[in-house]
Amino acid sequence: MLAQTSDQPDARQTPPTLPVPATVSPELQQAIAAPLRTDILVRPKTAREWRKLVQEADEQAAQVARLLWKQLGLTVTPSAIAGVQCFRLVPTSPLAPEGGRLLVHLHGGAYVLNGGEAATSEGALVAYSSKTTVISVDYRMPPDHPFPAALDDAVAVWQALIQEHDPAKTALFGSSAGGGLAMATVLRLKEQGAPLPGALFVGTPWVDLTKTGDTFFTNERVDNTLVSYDGMIEEAAKLYAGGRDLKDPLLSPVYGDLQGFPPSILISGTRDLFLSLTVRAHRKLRQAGVLADLHVFEGVSHAQFLTSFPSPESLEALQEVARFFDRHLAV
Amino acid sequence: MLAQTSDQPDARQTPPTLPVPATVSPELQQAIAAPLRTDILVRPKTAREWRKLVQEADEQAAQVARLLWKQLGLTVTPSAIAGVQCFRLVPTSPLAPEGGRLLVHLHGGAYVLNGGEAATSEGALVAYSSKTTVISVDYRMPPDHPFPAALDDAVAVWQALIQEHDPAKTALFGSSAGGGLAMATVLRLKEQGAPLPGALFVGTPWVDLTKTGDTFFTNERVDNTLVSYDGMIEEAAKLYAGGRDLKDPLLSPVYGDLQGFPPSILISGTRDLFLSLTVRAHRKLRQAGVLADLHVFEGVSHAQFLTSFPSPESLEALQEVARFFDRHLAV
Repeated sequence: MLAQTSDQPDARQTPPTLPVPATVSPELQQAIAAPLRTDILVRPKTAREWRKLVQEADEQAAQVARLLWKQLGLTVTPSAIAGVQCFRLVPTSPLAPEGGRLLVHLHGGAYVLNGGEAATSEGALVAYSSKTTVISVDYRMPPDHPFPAALDDAVAVWQALIQEHDPAKTALFGSSAGGGLAMATVLRLKEQGAPLPGALFVGTPWVDLTKTGDTFFTNERVDNTLVSYDGMIEEAAKLYAGGRDLKDPLLSPVYGDLQGFPPSILISGTRDLFLSLTVRAHRKLRQAGVLADLHVFEGVSHAQFLTSFPSPESLEALQEVARFFDRHLAV
Repeated sequence: MLAQTSDQPDARQTPPTLPVPATVSPELQQAIAAPLRTDILVRPKTAREWRKLVQEADEQAAQVARLLWKQLGLTVTPSAIAGVQCFRLVPTSPLAPEGGRLLVHLHGGAYVLNGGEAATSEGALVAYSSKTTVISVDYRMPPDHPFPAALDDAVAVWQALIQEHDPAKTALFGSSAGGGLAMATVLRLKEQGAPLPGALFVGTPWVDLTKTGDTFFTNERVDNTLVSYDGMIEEAAKLYAGGRDLKDPLLSPVYGDLQGFPPSILISGTRDLFLSLTVRAHRKLRQAGVLADLHVFEGVSHAQFLTSFPSPESLEALQEVARFFDRHLAV
């Protein structure tokens, strides 16, 4: 799901053989047994090459998203908020009436993939599992709109929503690039002195656009989803940054001042190329005195706690998020 | 420290080169840069071979322990409790008067190492950082005393202590084999219907004596402390079990029923051979509805959050434990 493809020949080389854990569910075993992606190792060089790649991936991901809406019984409505294209995802039996709790979703996809309807898959899972309306932000992306367009859009939607909504009842969430963007959004809101979300969920967050993190090396060619920094990931980082310093905290929020952040839940897996990014973000939050809960799933590669849905492990991860919101958001 | 030696030639083979993370402290970088241990890959075959190995390692570890007592300003007194040899470690400025909070420590060392004064190093660190008296249990071990001697001793000490001490003010803790033994102790106390500890700290716990866990493979020869299951670890598991099923929950508590466990804090690192054991234990606790906090440190091998003391990361880990006890134990 979520733009993962697994129909490539097995390119795994190091280590030569890795047994699939016997202690995880059959559904997750299947995801773990999938060969390494090879399409993620390409390096698009021109805007034209990016557009072709993005169009193909997004069309496939949009199909998955629409199927999810149906499976999960969600009512999905496109709506512009502060001039930004968004999707409103309403579950069948919301916990609270309209005007109660609200969740704002920033999608993943390396700041270049998952535009349009494809933006909504993770939001759909969380709307369903948390029984809460989700606003999924279809923020602008490169090649046409590099940084800070995505951040501007996320902040603009947030600012518009809290005009009519209690921020203490509102969470911000996203995985991968969406997790990095969520944390950058909170940094920007802090700069502005704006009200912050009541809670934050960041899954395997892309909080450092450089190749800094031990699992970029230890989990290289072990994570079957991201595989390696050296390919599309690196190119997407540069494309998004548009010449800016990759360690700017608004691009790589692990370098920001995280004091005053809302209670946060972080999720990763033992095979995740971004495991180090996740634990570095967790430690920075804890060092800043923030309540931050970490969950790491056995054998799980990048974002596989979402893409293996409906594996028992994905349901468990989503339930952790729902419980976290129950604890930290007013209803 | 804690039985780690680093004067061996670099035997690292897979992956060929792993850069030391630049984002951790110089002290931790030094620990991470240490070559793989080779002494851990031996397979003692007779009681005589074990005794020789244990004697040499314990003498060295006891020196480290005595140095720590002095450095940390602890008053250490050997004392027998319920017929079990223990050490009482009293910090200079305890938080609470005698009769208040108490911490019970079960040392690591693969159920065969760290007998005698060597038992106390981790206990000394926690007594110091948590400002609380620690009872460190010098439980019986193989080759002379296989399972269930260690468990019997831990339970006997616990039962004796709570005759005169409020269990809600008392935590049980340990790392590696000590973490596994702490969880097995709680399982046995549950069976007996005895009062449980008010909190549990288990560092990189040996909760499965079999080679079950994804990071036994992904972190093999990446963890510079344990290196591989295939060597002393496997032999020690068999030695301790003494012919019993290695998956007996009292030997491998990850297979036990963890419902009703006290609030628990678990600590590991991204290079830890036991990272999977730690996250499997964490998930089992969460599935059982237990409040359980997970902390994973960047680049850290097995128990390096202790053995790198006084690195900033080790102080941070110990502070997390202290804060956890503050939150969950009465004073």
